[in-house]
Amino acid sequence: MMHAEQRQRTHQLLRARGVSRALFAHPHSITWLTGFAPPVQLGLNPFAGGPPLLWVEDSHFTLLVMDGLAGATGALTEDPDCDVVTYPGYTYQQPIDGFGGLRVALRQVAGEGHGARKFGIESQHLPMALEAVLSEAGWTESVDMDGWLTDLRMVKTAEELDKLRANFALTDIGHAAARQAVRLGRREIDIWTDIHSAVERAVGHRVPLGNDCVVNTRQANIGGWPEAYALDEQGSIIIDLSTLDQGYWSDSCATYYAGEPTAEQRAVHQVVADALDYAIHLVRPGVKANVIDQKTRAFIADAGYPVYPHHTGHGVGVSGHEEPRITPYNGQVLEEGMVIMLEPGIYFPGEFGVRLEDALLVTAGGAEILTTHEKGPWVKAT
Amino acid sequence: MMHAEQRQRTHQLLRARGVSRALFAHPHSITWLTGFAPPVQLGLNPFAGGPPLLWVEDSHFTLLVMDGLAGATGALTEDPDCDVVTYPGYTYQQPIDGFGGLRVALRQVAGEGHGARKFGIESQHLPMALEAVLSEAGWTESVDMDGWLTDLRMVKTAEELDKLRANFALTDIGHAAARQAVRLGRREIDIWTDIHSAVERAVGHRVPLGNDCVVNTRQANIGGWPEAYALDEQGSIIIDLSTLDQGYWSDSCATYYAGEPTAEQRAVHQVVADALDYAIHLVRPGVKANVIDQKTRAFIADAGYPVYPHHTGHGVGVSGHEEPRITPYNGQVLEEGMVIMLEPGIYFPGEFGVRLEDALLVTAGGAEILTTHEKGPWVKAT
Repeated sequence: MMHAEQRQRTHQLLRARGVSRALFAHPHSITWLTGFAPPVQLGLNPFAGGPPLLWVEDSHFTLLVMDGLAGATGALTEDPDCDVVTYPGYTYQQPIDGFGGLRVALRQVAGEGHGARKFGIESQHLPMALEAVLSEAGWTESVDMDGWLTDLRMVKTAEELDKLRANFALTDIGHAAARQAVRLGRREIDIWTDIHSAVERAVGHRVPLGNDCVVNTRQANIGGWPEAYALDEQGSIIIDLSTLDQGYWSDSCATYYAGEPTAEQRAVHQVVADALDYAIHLVRPGVKANVIDQKTRAFIADAGYPVYPHHTGHGVGVSGHEEPRITPYNGQVLEEGMVIMLEPGIYFPGEFGVRLEDALLVTAGGAEILTTHEKGPWVKAT
Repeated sequence: MMHAEQRQRTHQLLRARGVSRALFAHPHSITWLTGFAPPVQLGLNPFAGGPPLLWVEDSHFTLLVMDGLAGATGALTEDPDCDVVTYPGYTYQQPIDGFGGLRVALRQVAGEGHGARKFGIESQHLPMALEAVLSEAGWTESVDMDGWLTDLRMVKTAEELDKLRANFALTDIGHAAARQAVRLGRREIDIWTDIHSAVERAVGHRVPLGNDCVVNTRQANIGGWPEAYALDEQGSIIIDLSTLDQGYWSDSCATYYAGEPTAEQRAVHQVVADALDYAIHLVRPGVKANVIDQKTRAFIADAGYPVYPHHTGHGVGVSGHEEPRITPYNGQVLEEGMVIMLEPGIYFPGEFGVRLEDALLVTAGGAEILTTHEKGPWVKAT
């Protein structure tokens, strides 16, 4: 049973809100509800007629997906509560009409309203062109469900934790490769390709990789994608790695040095390491997200450094950034089973910056650290 | 002026069809009309409120995009016929509401209908949730424009040719790396990461890379993403490379051998090379796409081999597969300035396969080959 618990939670939510028929369209909703995770790294599929869709009738789910992506539905096809319906995408024998195929499939799956015209939709991700199909079937009173699953997604299932752990193992591999790759004169893109190659070879297939790979001398040295900037003698580099595998994201960050860090670099690095350690020890069920945020910011300020102009952390799952966000405004109480990132930093634009990040599973007694990459100041053996 | 010719062509088309206001939403339309090409390889941006949108009033265009992606608008911001309007995406000081930001921005840009209620939309890519915004502004009689730009996109501008040529230079680099990487015992993913690294290092930034990297012993040895399958002594591998840079795709394919190809492998390889050469010499203005398709299939059949179960080729541009498709049904006449791929192959599932592919610019006198990778049977020096 793939992601059956997610579908049960959702069925209960829909029932409580009086919605018995619904059409999910947000890619994150689809992955969370089914485990289906089509490849993303080439952008829009030119043969698909639209995003994958998930139709719900009471406690039964039907995934609509282009035939060429059906391989990614995996074990889902054996689940009694979830059907997979495909429509034709690529063909060379007649003009390609993915949208036409999707329309026919949706019309069949949505059936007839039989007077029960009210139905839920994720309207921010459902193409306008499908409205006619739904109204032809008699579904005319739509209820916006955008964001309904956000809170349900915060506490992870055992199955999700397995997928997240597998991804954090990949960022560990990425950081080990980064430590080998960071050397005087090397460019961000050189280091990045070493990391990406190590991750993909370890897992044996392609893996999307985020997020940041920026040397200290960039003006915006908080984050950004790798380019041709090279490490100089006092060079440092922030490497923030996220992998996407089995539909789930990881995250992680460390800061590395091309040579011997200066006394100032060491001092700043130590404050950030202490701030992360301090933040981690605040994590436990019952604590509010904004309390962790405020205390961690205060820790940096009290040490006499500029406070990072970003969140203290965020949840992670089918989205790389999700609830609970560890931010000044968020009074969300942490619960056992949530997975959050914590990532304090100190930045001097154009000079240098340090950010360190760990993943935490909220446990009954506090927190388990899911990332095991080394984060201390570190000098390459010569 | 970035992509101004595309906007002029589109303005003329809209005027001819009696549409003075329009909202484009297909990512390929947006890139073609503006040059704007946000990164794709991490999937859905968790902070964006929706896809980039392009509002048209007569001959004036306005691109709506999340602030965090505005850097990718490049030189567009200096074009007098195209404004860029941004809406807030990521923030840590208040709850993230990309969709709310997009809604407000669209409401401002779409203004008031002032009685002119008819407007064009790309309804297959416009989120249903934005319908209310448009109708509030008085735009109520929508005209579906899905596919309207498809034919306009076939003949490339000089600016597009520059971008395409730059990408074909990258696939050439990728194939040179592939020739170095293919060795007995190596896995598809090992070879792939060598290729991807070489391409990204050459260009100095991240580049999405497709399409296929499959060893001969896979049952589906026509295509697929690289996995952990290794090359054995009689191993061959089909490597089909596409890069996406500056919003444009390239494409290319060759077949490599881990050792000395057998007599049968050489014979098949030669037939495919001859078929590609034959197909290339059919290309010139005035010839129909399906004539090239039929003749190339006949060439393979006449040689006594099974005819490839896919197109003979396709156009390439902001989409990796676009018009004109070189297929049995397509009577499209080739014109000077079109760019097409030709890719005949011969496959024996689970045993071995050969595919070779070149890119052609249709010129007044015939065709210019844009890909320069070696495609002949080739054995590594030992």
